[in-house]
Amino acid sequence: MTSLDAIAGTAERGTLYGIGVGPGDVRYLTLRAAGLVRSVDVVAFFAKRGRLGNARRIVAPLMDAARQELRLEYPVTDEIPADHPDYQNQIAAFYAEASSSLSALLEDGRSVGLLAEGDPFFYGSFMHMWRRLAEVFPVEVVPGVTGMSGCWTRANLPITWGNDTLSVLPGTLAEGQLVDRLRNTDAAVIMKLGRNLAKVRRAVEAAGLLSRAVYVERGTMPGERILPLAECGEPAGAYFAMVLVAGQGRQL
Amino acid sequence: MTSLDAIAGTAERGTLYGIGVGPGDVRYLTLRAAGLVRSVDVVAFFAKRGRLGNARRIVAPLMDAARQELRLEYPVTDEIPADHPDYQNQIAAFYAEASSSLSALLEDGRSVGLLAEGDPFFYGSFMHMWRRLAEVFPVEVVPGVTGMSGCWTRANLPITWGNDTLSVLPGTLAEGQLVDRLRNTDAAVIMKLGRNLAKVRRAVEAAGLLSRAVYVERGTMPGERILPLAECGEPAGAYFAMVLVAGQGRQL
Ligand SMILES: C[S@@+](CC[C@H](N)C(=O)[O-])C[C@H]1O[C@@H](n2cnc3c(N)ncnc32)[C@H](O)[C@@H]1O
Ligand SMILES: C[S@@+](CC[C@H](N)C(=O)[O-])C[C@H]1O[C@@H](n2cnc3c(N)ncnc32)[C@H](O)[C@@H]1O
Repeated sequence: MTSLDAIAGTAERGTLYGIGVGPGDVRYLTLRAAGLVRSVDVVAFFAKRGRLGNARRIVAPLMDAARQELRLEYPVTDEIPADHPDYQNQIAAFYAEASSSLSALLEDGRSVGLLAEGDPFFYGSFMHMWRRLAEVFPVEVVPGVTGMSGCWTRANLPITWGNDTLSVLPGTLAEGQLVDRLRNTDAAVIMKLGRNLAKVRRAVEAAGLLSRAVYVERGTMPGERILPLAECGEPAGAYFAMVLVAGQGRQL
Repeated sequence: MTSLDAIAGTAERGTLYGIGVGPGDVRYLTLRAAGLVRSVDVVAFFAKRGRLGNARRIVAPLMDAARQELRLEYPVTDEIPADHPDYQNQIAAFYAEASSSLSALLEDGRSVGLLAEGDPFFYGSFMHMWRRLAEVFPVEVVPGVTGMSGCWTRANLPITWGNDTLSVLPGTLAEGQLVDRLRNTDAAVIMKLGRNLAKVRRAVEAAGLLSRAVYVERGTMPGERILPLAECGEPAGAYFAMVLVAGQGRQL
């Protein structure tokens, strides 16, 4: 027999928006992203413990006191290396919990905009929510300007010309792998520096690219720093930092 | 003796804006890009002969009849292969002429917004103007959502997870090089398909990636087409088309 629940039906489910907020400057949100930040029922965002949350800070000029917010706070960030099983277990449990909180709002018919730094589908933590929720709820993903576009713009460095190839490499790769990949590309972006900076610098030098490499920290954000990698002697880089090597292809 | 010209001075020079207009949907312009399109003295854009111009079409909803426009029309596009000397000579002469037209406006104190599809510093023809003008005039580059971000969003394909590497490859590479590069990456974007499509398809298959590859034509634009590369039997692809292979890194 058909249940009363099935006959009565439920309120329409809310839509989950994955909102790319760009590299840091609020002016680099897209029109669609800005329109959603100002109109969804709930603005959700990930944040490190004790911090405002970088994506939340980026959209601050578009928020007002009336808007409901959902802060999703990481239990760990870089106290434990990301390939350690403890890290992976804690983060997986956290993502499961975060997706339940989002689910509850969506079931209730509320629209939720989950902020994502840069572009949501490019190394974004939004993807971990998308993976759990996209089959259950309506989802719209709003592409964003990536952190790397913001960084090469600010460094005044056109990244690829003509038939250049570009490799995007995480600084977490082993040193030898970094060197190999760097030798086989025209242009390169090395992300996720943090404690990998000294290793990345050695790899860039071994690949013969040190004189062309630029270090960009917090591109388009307050506290932006841009300098030749060769002059960057710090043992560790910031979390929001990358190394850029521009291609040298056909310039007509 | 100091010339009267030097003493009298001239009007302030106009600023050249390189405006990234994103992958195709006008809602994916950034706030900064949209603000500039509506306020610069002259909106300039490249266009193929006999066509409206793709970047110009993207911003159409933001333009009004009063705005001055400068159409820069390519003398050749894909009638001649891009590595042929005739092509290179004609294009170089065209770029020299286009930069003179822009110069004249900027000297005259007018602000000029040169539209760039996607992000201006990522394989953009804007770069050829920037190279000639950035030392002479004030320039502001506005990063944009790249074509590839628009495409992987629409294909519903998070492109990189965890420690994935991403290679961006032009379809103009030789087949063997494509195969090598594809074997040495986790995720891939192959741009500039056009007449290279059949070769790219063979290379993707040789690298064992055919079952994971997606073909996206005109992503986020009218006439968008998305299909598995394996089902794409055409001998040639569209100009605005790319192949995507998503990474399979750590999914927490
Ligand atoms: C988890 S990934 C997120 C990438 C993001 N979804 C995007 O589209 O740029 C974080 C890494 O992005 C890079 N990043 C993002 N924004 C940046 C910025 N504004 N300046 C420097 N690096 C940035 C850093 O390398 C950082 O380690
Ligand atoms: C000269 S490059 C310009 C890239 C642009 N500056 C960007 O940031 O995406 C042109 C190539 O970009 C790709 N492309 C750009 N936008 C696209 C879209 N909306 N759909 C499919 N391909 C696109 C195609 O591969 C095309 O051959």
